[in-house]
Amino acid sequence: MTKFYQEITPGGYGIAIKQKDILFSEQSDFQKVEVFETDSDLGRVLTLDDLMMTTEGDEWHYHEMIAHIPMMNHKCPKTVLVIGGGDGGTVREVLKHETVEKVVLCEIDGMVIDVCKKFLPTISCELDNPKCEILVEDAIEYIKDKKNMFDIVLIDSTDPMGPGEGLFTDEFYTNVKESLKEGGIMVAQSESPFAQAESVRKMYVQLKKVFPIVSTYTSNIPTYPGGYWAWAYCSQTVKPLSYIDEERCEKITQTCKIYNKDYHLARFALPNYLKELL
Amino acid sequence: MTKFYQEITPGGYGIAIKQKDILFSEQSDFQKVEVFETDSDLGRVLTLDDLMMTTEGDEWHYHEMIAHIPMMNHKCPKTVLVIGGGDGGTVREVLKHETVEKVVLCEIDGMVIDVCKKFLPTISCELDNPKCEILVEDAIEYIKDKKNMFDIVLIDSTDPMGPGEGLFTDEFYTNVKESLKEGGIMVAQSESPFAQAESVRKMYVQLKKVFPIVSTYTSNIPTYPGGYWAWAYCSQTVKPLSYIDEERCEKITQTCKIYNKDYHLARFALPNYLKELL
Repeated sequence: MTKFYQEITPGGYGIAIKQKDILFSEQSDFQKVEVFETDSDLGRVLTLDDLMMTTEGDEWHYHEMIAHIPMMNHKCPKTVLVIGGGDGGTVREVLKHETVEKVVLCEIDGMVIDVCKKFLPTISCELDNPKCEILVEDAIEYIKDKKNMFDIVLIDSTDPMGPGEGLFTDEFYTNVKESLKEGGIMVAQSESPFAQAESVRKMYVQLKKVFPIVSTYTSNIPTYPGGYWAWAYCSQTVKPLSYIDEERCEKITQTCKIYNKDYHLARFALPNYLKELL
Repeated sequence: MTKFYQEITPGGYGIAIKQKDILFSEQSDFQKVEVFETDSDLGRVLTLDDLMMTTEGDEWHYHEMIAHIPMMNHKCPKTVLVIGGGDGGTVREVLKHETVEKVVLCEIDGMVIDVCKKFLPTISCELDNPKCEILVEDAIEYIKDKKNMFDIVLIDSTDPMGPGEGLFTDEFYTNVKESLKEGGIMVAQSESPFAQAESVRKMYVQLKKVFPIVSTYTSNIPTYPGGYWAWAYCSQTVKPLSYIDEERCEKITQTCKIYNKDYHLARFALPNYLKELL
């Protein structure tokens, strides 16, 4: 009989995937880390505390969107900080930008990095790039004394519970703001507008206390709740869509399954129900 | 123990919903028609041949998109034909446009209409509107001698198998084209770009044989495969985004959970993988 992996949201619905072998399952110091094989187009799946983080088959929907929207809106992103993101997908996309001199990955759980390097090589493939510095540290502590250091900070976190909880506070966002150089941009994953409306609302209340510019963009993620995801775009001075580097945009589009200029420009047009929520 | 309704695509993944009572389940002359209650934010669900057609909780994602994108791109849509769409959701959205004098619903399966009137009143609520003419007929036959009659034709069909199969042929599309008045627009649901790529590709090959203008727009549908859906926009003369009635747009936006002008304008920006497919 077929075995199904099911992930059901508090709303009573969710995703089901034909599951095959569990390749890895261990409790780290922070969470349960698991990778399993599926009998599906989605390939291998990484879960943390039994919540789906990424699949080989649709990870580009998420990673292209978290990285290229802010990166392309910056005139010359040289230094980038990725918080969370131990699977390496966001680092991989960031490093497509030739302007980048250094990307720091600050992931609290070293087991996530090791497991993804071993079992999800198409996602983690750039973690050994010499431009990538990996820190197995708590980003909440790490960010406290980093002033004026990064052009782009990407918060590629889990949901606002468990080890990711402290990444959704105004104290943390204030420290991130201060870690940004002039013209810097922070983007944070901000949950499912349809399936997790209350989480989305709360997060934006915090963000608006800290950043003068807070905007939202959305895109399809097939395996996330509601098939629809939001990211918060925050900056002190740089409005979204105020700049796109045409030449860089064209080059990177050729390497992407989703991202292109028109798709970028369309991302900030939100449905009424989400506009009302924010 | 919780019972789950699961709908798994050929790709090996899909949706799971906490299922409660089955309110209706019968074989019509054409298909199995079922409505069940869920223990979820999605409310009641209509399935045809065990494929989810609509849910009370997310139906507006689909119905607003199939109706308002073409309706708002027409200067004065007076006569509208809806093919399939027996749940009534598309008719409900069409009738929000005050220009409409008559909407014909041509649905092959009378049982679908009766069941939706009884069990899904928030979706079927406008089927008794005097402007709505209901025909329980095969649209393939109906359309054959209708020349120059409609401003808008909306193909709100099931997937290209079972009773819906004949609605995906170039012969049928040619008849629809001839049923359109000058300046007319046809929109057809065109499956999931991520989960049903091959169906999407085949359909557009047919459409391009028939219509000089064939374009694609997409939006999120939480309960459909991949959480992402495409519609084909076809016309002899009217390009997409060539017109939006500002006053009508503003009025209708106030009645919608999704639709607004910016969201409309953003819908034709497609991800790379879908552009390559078409």
